[in-house]
Amino acid sequence: MLVVQKYGGTSVRDIERIMNVAKKTVEYKNKDNDIVVVVSAMAGETDRLLNIAHEIAKFPDDREMDVLISTGEQVTSALLAISLKEIGYDAVSVLGYQVRIVTDSSFGKARITDVEKEKIFAELKKGKIVVVPGFQGVDEDGNITTLGRGGSDTTAVALAAGLNADLCEIYTDVDGVYTTDPNICNRARRLDTISYDEMLEMASLGAKVLQTRSVELAKKYNVPILVKSSLVEGIGTLVCKEDMMSMEQVVISGVSYNKNEAKITVVNVPDKPGIAAKIFTALSDANIVVDVIVQNVSRGDFTDITFTIAKTDAKKAYKIMEEVAPGVGAEKVNIDNDIAKISIVGLGMRSHSGIASKMFSILAHEGVNIEAITTSEIKISCVIESKYGELAVRALHKGFGLDAEDVKEEK
Amino acid sequence: MLVVQKYGGTSVRDIERIMNVAKKTVEYKNKDNDIVVVVSAMAGETDRLLNIAHEIAKFPDDREMDVLISTGEQVTSALLAISLKEIGYDAVSVLGYQVRIVTDSSFGKARITDVEKEKIFAELKKGKIVVVPGFQGVDEDGNITTLGRGGSDTTAVALAAGLNADLCEIYTDVDGVYTTDPNICNRARRLDTISYDEMLEMASLGAKVLQTRSVELAKKYNVPILVKSSLVEGIGTLVCKEDMMSMEQVVISGVSYNKNEAKITVVNVPDKPGIAAKIFTALSDANIVVDVIVQNVSRGDFTDITFTIAKTDAKKAYKIMEEVAPGVGAEKVNIDNDIAKISIVGLGMRSHSGIASKMFSILAHEGVNIEAITTSEIKISCVIESKYGELAVRALHKGFGLDAEDVKEEK
Repeated sequence: MLVVQKYGGTSVRDIERIMNVAKKTVEYKNKDNDIVVVVSAMAGETDRLLNIAHEIAKFPDDREMDVLISTGEQVTSALLAISLKEIGYDAVSVLGYQVRIVTDSSFGKARITDVEKEKIFAELKKGKIVVVPGFQGVDEDGNITTLGRGGSDTTAVALAAGLNADLCEIYTDVDGVYTTDPNICNRARRLDTISYDEMLEMASLGAKVLQTRSVELAKKYNVPILVKSSLVEGIGTLVCKEDMMSMEQVVISGVSYNKNEAKITVVNVPDKPGIAAKIFTALSDANIVVDVIVQNVSRGDFTDITFTIAKTDAKKAYKIMEEVAPGVGAEKVNIDNDIAKISIVGLGMRSHSGIASKMFSILAHEGVNIEAITTSEIKISCVIESKYGELAVRALHKGFGLDAEDVKEEK
Repeated sequence: MLVVQKYGGTSVRDIERIMNVAKKTVEYKNKDNDIVVVVSAMAGETDRLLNIAHEIAKFPDDREMDVLISTGEQVTSALLAISLKEIGYDAVSVLGYQVRIVTDSSFGKARITDVEKEKIFAELKKGKIVVVPGFQGVDEDGNITTLGRGGSDTTAVALAAGLNADLCEIYTDVDGVYTTDPNICNRARRLDTISYDEMLEMASLGAKVLQTRSVELAKKYNVPILVKSSLVEGIGTLVCKEDMMSMEQVVISGVSYNKNEAKITVVNVPDKPGIAAKIFTALSDANIVVDVIVQNVSRGDFTDITFTIAKTDAKKAYKIMEEVAPGVGAEKVNIDNDIAKISIVGLGMRSHSGIASKMFSILAHEGVNIEAITTSEIKISCVIESKYGELAVRALHKGFGLDAEDVKEEK
């Protein structure tokens, strides 16, 4: 079996942890597997390098920043290869440009275009454990590129796809994907399996565990990802294609929760073509990412357009809307920072009716007013008043039968 | 004019110094020169990385060590390129494998076999200042290699040779090459020029300033090297071909001094073929480098063989000689740790007679006994009692007319 393993920054934080990773790796190797290990920079190292550069320049050159910060993963790769050799296993580090992990030339946020497999297969054939630094690639001109924050997950999945690996294991500091945030709901359960689509929709839960981009890539190339803890034993959560999951689906897999958004409503805009385009073009020109968009059926010739954005963008977005509003004939712009977005996610809702009404009933029963609703095929999101956030999570988690029998121990 | 500049670890020790290097570089650029800058790792960084690796393994893998420690120069290169851009000059870092600086595969002590020039010329043509990390190269299989301690000097000279540069400037923490060690003789003078051969022979003075290997390379490809201080203004010392120097040669260029050797004498060995070979093969098998070797004409069928080695090897060498001595029919082995080696170096001695006798007279006049003598074409070395070392340096410096008129200021 060919397995790609990825260890994040906290898993390789110091020499002791790196030695621990080496031991975990050889356990697999001893079971006659071929292993490719992807490593992040030691925790704190990337920030240390960024800080030095920012002492020199407010906006340091993108290309040179990639030359600089890619050294973090390079150091960990060499140290892990040294550790593996020290405990008697043959290992070799293969850097991004040696693999080659080919990317476009968007320094700092490059996208992988190709993963060559000859070099890694040649080393595996010699019986070696191959160590690859995450986060880095090389463009067609031979420049070092990096994939952006959390890019090591993407490296691991891309390698697994390119090498046609049987499994991609992501080791992190949590032991899997949970039905909801255990900090909010002490009856949250670890899921044994979750589909790519559910993982993508469960952004607020999932993003803490796996970078969204890596899940998209895994879905595209059908790479099974096993999320596990590098610190405690456990079976983890398998992120995989729907049909690899157990036959009898639970309807709802998880309750997701986001308190970091603000809501803006453009009130009484004329209900005619081109208005929404004007509003959202103005936002995208300012590089503001919009999450939920709700437009209701019009009252006569007018309607309201509501959207949510990250709280950090709220002030900027509000200012832009105040400028845009008169031009599109809107009455006024309202902003609300005091919101929470609650979502239930599950493949099962495609074949089960009454999920939405059940969600609304549960919220109503707790006295929670719903300010906006959006739905996708496998997700229903409600914007509610922020103070009800945790309450709503617990009520929905219980109401949809997700509660564990035992209360989750405090960490 | 195309100039290669090299800045050592203390010259790029922190952000302030790196910015300072950037400023020095653009001064040249503004004079319409093409500039390639070679940088070392920030002072202390290489040792930091070595220490981490040695915490993991007593003998870490050579290949992976090069992957690890080459990051030090990579970081400095990126930071200098960022600094140059920050002050408004276009710059680009080009790593060893991007240049490509091709080496053999002797990890940790690789030798340069080829320097490709296309990439650097292409960047210079775009008007960019090119920053190249010293110390690192790439072998034919694409593995990262390093050149050994002080390798950045060699990188700079190799680049200057490969690019056919007009000048190679080495910036360091001293302002040039001196006639002798100013710490011993306060009338030591900075030399304006020195020939490659003199520089090579003046090991104890020169090696503190330039790596011997880089001087050999400069001589082979006739690259003029200008040694300057990165901290204070000055004209430095030009290391160059003999015929570039002023017509009227001084006879002696400098007095060199070494207190870090020990002397071993194998007493009364039979004067027949193969004996010396046996002795020195035993030493080289143990990786002991021998400096001076003296064998006198035989007394009848017997002779003494004297040699010097680094003090750190003295114990080991003595033990080996005690084992070898009976087999070669020697009477006994003597060791003396209390020696100093004093050398006078100068191209002029080839055409001037009486230099050796003058040296011996000066020493005799000071009551210094000479224990061994060796000579090359442009150097005469005497082994003397260690306690007379500094006295001998000052006497020879004065006797050969090297004294400055003014006493060198205390630093």
